[in-house]
Amino acid sequence: MAGFSPKDPDWRARCEDSFARQALMSTMGAGIDRLQPGQCTLSLAHRPDLCQQHGYLHAGTTMALADTAAGYAAFSLMPKGASVLTTELKINLLNPAAGERLEAVAEVVKPGRTLSVVKADVYGIQGGKRGHVATVLATMMCLADTPDDKGR
Amino acid sequence: MAGFSPKDPDWRARCEDSFARQALMSTMGAGIDRLQPGQCTLSLAHRPDLCQQHGYLHAGTTMALADTAAGYAAFSLMPKGASVLTTELKINLLNPAAGERLEAVAEVVKPGRTLSVVKADVYGIQGGKRGHVATVLATMMCLADTPDDKGR
Amino acid sequence: MAGFSPKDPDWRARCEDSFARQALMSTMGAGIDRLQPGQCTLSLAHRPDLCQQHGYLHAGTTMALADTAAGYAAFSLMPKGASVLTTELKINLLNPAAGERLEAVAEVVKPGRTLSVVKADVYGIQGGKRGHVATVLATMMCLADTPDDKGR
Amino acid sequence: MAGFSPKDPDWRARCEDSFARQALMSTMGAGIDRLQPGQCTLSLAHRPDLCQQHGYLHAGTTMALADTAAGYAAFSLMPKGASVLTTELKINLLNPAAGERLEAVAEVVKPGRTLSVVKADVYGIQGGKRGHVATVLATMMCLADTPDDKGR
Repeated sequence: MAGFSPKDPDWRARCEDSFARQALMSTMGAGIDRLQPGQCTLSLAHRPDLCQQHGYLHAGTTMALADTAAGYAAFSLMPKGASVLTTELKINLLNPAAGERLEAVAEVVKPGRTLSVVKADVYGIQGGKRGHVATVLATMMCLADTPDDKGR
Repeated sequence: MAGFSPKDPDWRARCEDSFARQALMSTMGAGIDRLQPGQCTLSLAHRPDLCQQHGYLHAGTTMALADTAAGYAAFSLMPKGASVLTTELKINLLNPAAGERLEAVAEVVKPGRTLSVVKADVYGIQGGKRGHVATVLATMMCLADTPDDKGR
Repeated sequence: MAGFSPKDPDWRARCEDSFARQALMSTMGAGIDRLQPGQCTLSLAHRPDLCQQHGYLHAGTTMALADTAAGYAAFSLMPKGASVLTTELKINLLNPAAGERLEAVAEVVKPGRTLSVVKADVYGIQGGKRGHVATVLATMMCLADTPDDKGR
Repeated sequence: MAGFSPKDPDWRARCEDSFARQALMSTMGAGIDRLQPGQCTLSLAHRPDLCQQHGYLHAGTTMALADTAAGYAAFSLMPKGASVLTTELKINLLNPAAGERLEAVAEVVKPGRTLSVVKADVYGIQGGKRGHVATVLATMMCLADTPDDKGR
């Protein structure tokens, strides 16, 4: 994939500041592993309180992590002052979310002035082994400056 | 919609027991509001620790609640001893997840021996006002008895 | 569902004129059955040249009809001079596309200045019997006046 | 991506024979460009009768080609006597389907005994230039031997 050029020289600080205000990500213990223009990797440690009835991480945990990684992959390319909004997300769950760590790797497929299409893959990591937990396609919308814009 | 006939007379207890073991749902403070064969309504109260950077409930919270409601709508129609698994889920986010309460209403569109297609709608509730937060289409798989079945 | 108010008094003629220029719809023998603000029903007759390897209508035929119905449901609410563009579509195929006629019924879930979310259901009709072939969620984009706008 | 091992030594002939019976693909003038275990590339030439109202190939044409490529990518790995069925498909349309040729490149993400998840990308080709038209995630189901199996 060709590299992307950020429009905002402060894209990294802007993404990190925004992520730090995502309370659900703190609640889930998620952190940023890697941030590049158009790319974002997040991860979290397995915790019993994020699981479903069989002891694997809940699909909702996987979705939340993948959605957030996809959002920041897109947000990194947006101009200063913009807000990012998920308009839609599709996930295919491939294997149980097993392992001591869950990692979501997101990359912009097509950036756009209004809409950006992003793909993400989620992996379960146990020691040096990575299992493919899920694959995601999502659309992120750039809002000029109003986070609760109804004009989406 | 025509009513569905459960195959397992103990469908309700089976769904309630399984839901009680969904740790993420406890973590999020979600509960079952209504359970009928092929239908499930879940809700949770707005809490700051489930939000995103603008103070609305995080899309991951919305996805987790909708996925779980969809899962139990399908699970209610599955035979005794079965496990339910989300194979894929698509969500369109329509409005910010505002309000004091978030409700996910799921209903089976087509039950199947192996796959069940389920729709869900998520509403933000503030006093007597309901806002349409999201709409979902998902596929749930029935596994005979092995929760970590790789044969999905 | 509450009725929608079209912004363009000539919405009907505008939809019909646009549909008449959809060559693929002519190729498939599809026509408009019903057009209301925010709603569109299209249908086509079963034809061997639109089928897959087992003699049912091809999923591609079902997708084309559903996509087009969804597009005109959204287009009916767009202002004069606008163009409509599918940004994404998700389809769940429920039953084989059997029957002498295939019908796609689309309805706007949420109209928006830029994006409209639309649902559609596809039915196979044989005599008086209707089978549920597919269910669809899609996002349609309103472009001010440039059909090949790259800014989507 | 690691290579896939077909279960049926006659996988290629089986895919080609099945494709030859897909009437819609003949109608659209589509052919197989490349077939490998778990991978399938199809293409078709731009034709006015496959277009929408602005002279680009119709999204339905793009969907039909991508769905079929995804189906044969999955079918190549299925056992002798099996049938393949699309259970769901999600497409994000990225750019107008411009160019003299449309190509769909599909690859299995995760093969399964019952369900296979497949991704596909669609390109518009004009001279030596390739534009990214669409990206797709789909689920294909393997049916033991009954093409109209209701048990999906």
